[in-house]
Amino acid sequence: MTAQGIYLDNNATTRVDPDVLAEMLPLFTEQFGNPSSMHGFGAAVGGKIEWARKQVQALLGAAHDSEIVFTSGGTESDNTAILSTLEAYPKKKSIVTSVVEHPAVLALCDYLEKKRGYTVHRIGVDNRGNLDLDAYKAALGPDVAIVSIMWANNETGTIFPIEELAQLAKAAGAVFHTDAVQAVGKIPMTLATSAVDMLSLSGHKLHAPKGIGALYVKRGLRFRPMLRGGHQERSRRAGTENAPGIVGLGAAAQLALMHMTDENTRVKALRDKLEQAILAAVPNCFVTGNPANRLPNTCNVAFEYIEGEAILLLLNEADIAASSGSACTSGSLEPSHVMRAMGVPYTAAHGATRFSLSRETTEEEIDRVIAVVPGIIAKLRSLSPYWSQAGAPKEFAPVYS
Amino acid sequence: MTAQGIYLDNNATTRVDPDVLAEMLPLFTEQFGNPSSMHGFGAAVGGKIEWARKQVQALLGAAHDSEIVFTSGGTESDNTAILSTLEAYPKKKSIVTSVVEHPAVLALCDYLEKKRGYTVHRIGVDNRGNLDLDAYKAALGPDVAIVSIMWANNETGTIFPIEELAQLAKAAGAVFHTDAVQAVGKIPMTLATSAVDMLSLSGHKLHAPKGIGALYVKRGLRFRPMLRGGHQERSRRAGTENAPGIVGLGAAAQLALMHMTDENTRVKALRDKLEQAILAAVPNCFVTGNPANRLPNTCNVAFEYIEGEAILLLLNEADIAASSGSACTSGSLEPSHVMRAMGVPYTAAHGATRFSLSRETTEEEIDRVIAVVPGIIAKLRSLSPYWSQAGAPKEFAPVYS
Repeated sequence: MTAQGIYLDNNATTRVDPDVLAEMLPLFTEQFGNPSSMHGFGAAVGGKIEWARKQVQALLGAAHDSEIVFTSGGTESDNTAILSTLEAYPKKKSIVTSVVEHPAVLALCDYLEKKRGYTVHRIGVDNRGNLDLDAYKAALGPDVAIVSIMWANNETGTIFPIEELAQLAKAAGAVFHTDAVQAVGKIPMTLATSAVDMLSLSGHKLHAPKGIGALYVKRGLRFRPMLRGGHQERSRRAGTENAPGIVGLGAAAQLALMHMTDENTRVKALRDKLEQAILAAVPNCFVTGNPANRLPNTCNVAFEYIEGEAILLLLNEADIAASSGSACTSGSLEPSHVMRAMGVPYTAAHGATRFSLSRETTEEEIDRVIAVVPGIIAKLRSLSPYWSQAGAPKEFAPVYS
Repeated sequence: MTAQGIYLDNNATTRVDPDVLAEMLPLFTEQFGNPSSMHGFGAAVGGKIEWARKQVQALLGAAHDSEIVFTSGGTESDNTAILSTLEAYPKKKSIVTSVVEHPAVLALCDYLEKKRGYTVHRIGVDNRGNLDLDAYKAALGPDVAIVSIMWANNETGTIFPIEELAQLAKAAGAVFHTDAVQAVGKIPMTLATSAVDMLSLSGHKLHAPKGIGALYVKRGLRFRPMLRGGHQERSRRAGTENAPGIVGLGAAAQLALMHMTDENTRVKALRDKLEQAILAAVPNCFVTGNPANRLPNTCNVAFEYIEGEAILLLLNEADIAASSGSACTSGSLEPSHVMRAMGVPYTAAHGATRFSLSRETTEEEIDRVIAVVPGIIAKLRSLSPYWSQAGAPKEFAPVYS
């Protein structure tokens, strides 16, 4: 718990770990040189950047540190992966992705379809958020330059079978990219033995600061830079290196690897406790996504007949931070594209609420959320015309059998 | 002077001002929320970002804060300005730039010429680094989508007549962009009454951190984003906002405006003192660029018959950090493209050394550099076969009359 309350919106962004910040601090005011410079102010910085690269390599289980390209974040990594591949394979005019991707992939694909004449295959999901494998296989073909499928969904935490998808893509001659912004640091990875060609990650999702990310590019893969200029990052990403951010990401990667077991045992147990308590205490609600195959920190519960934004406001009054889905799509009155893609009924999708934990989450915090949530839901439903029309309290008819 | 020595490489990067860092710190571990989120952790952050936008607006003398788009740095700003304009005016197939631009402009233009069929007019400079205005006017025409000319040169500090160039570009129907990475914070600007359409700036050149920059986009200008995804920055730059970096840039902009007079009086006087002392004490050297029309902090002296890298090494041993030109082009054995463009003879261009001061530079530091430089140059020349062949000491035949 922080001074400000209980923070359960870690899929939107995380608090920078104080140990990460401590590693960064010297880079602002002491070792502030340009790593490309020929003097003492710059020399130390270059070494720290290479240290950070090795930490990211280790977290991803990558074969070579040279496969890590530092970027400004997940969006730049996603955009770079797709645009690089399309430029490297100019004769291929199709892209395969899913309907539940992050806007950093979907918005770019929409643009490529509308303005550049690409064919985009958006693979659907079932009501548990599982990818339609038959449709995926059918979409693969010689015209597909790149497949971009997320490792885990930001709203539900549902994990896609990335290795299987990557191998199928490779067999069809396509480059396989995964937006792993939500997965990196939460579940173990071994890219050295994987068919994944490119992977995006974002620092601020794993207790590093905002404004730094990385793109994994498997050795030997054709690559074309998006930012052009100086020769930084082995000519793969021009621009003076964000040295404090890079070192912060390195430190965060090291910590994430260290806490991987905690994330998948203690944090997961807290998530399960929260979820089971809510399901037991609140009528007419259900877990969205695939409960059996999820990130350990994510719980997305759809409360029928109320608005997610109202839930968030009352939670906020109780000093609890949660989310109605992706922060990147806030402000829209429609249910999220992820809920719509899973066919969650509007009466429930509007009330989808994401609780995303982190290693900083305590049992005391979870107990307080468990104590508060049922009352908030009951209060809102007492004001809801939809709930009255639905004739509550009634027996819950589960959407999923 | 810092613990590490005397830092005279501020055109490569600057030390983050401790007051800037102090403004940033809460954003890492306290106000760390995603500004798009609907809870208290995010709300405060959004307000700080808008505060920072107003500080950058004030530094640039821009009419509206909404004209400021935060980016990851100068390279992204430059790339975005050019690519946005080419996409907004798809029928225009020419670009006008100069031979002395930063690689963030030149490398992109090279690519656009070679891979996308654009015609690039690279306007030359005279031996003082002044733009060839006749060639510039001749290059403007209805096919020119964008002119991208730097405000001040990073190596010599030479200032281009930006307002005149912008008005000529506008009259010819072209968008005018300026890479002002070296000029912003060093010389006053009033974009509200200027013909400049777009301007790039970089945080780490003005005592803000690396990894943050901005692009000024005049209200009403056609704009197409380079990074696509979420709706951040009014849909002009997708990706979670680098809140600590943005607030740091805002604080740095506020300080730069506050210190503008100091920069143009005290810092300028220190630069002049350094330059005059070197010219008086060292034979066969001269100032490159236009001494009468330069950034107040920059001094670039070409020492004949020695190698710049050797000068830098001995300076570094004396705890003085300087540069042989652009850090972004280090590692090359050739003289910089700027020196070549000005026609500086190879015997001198190899020895071009840039001393770039900042408001943190003290008179004590300058006195120490003045005391050290002549000995370093003499020592290197005593080892130089070129110097021996040249028959030194001889009377200096100035390259410029």
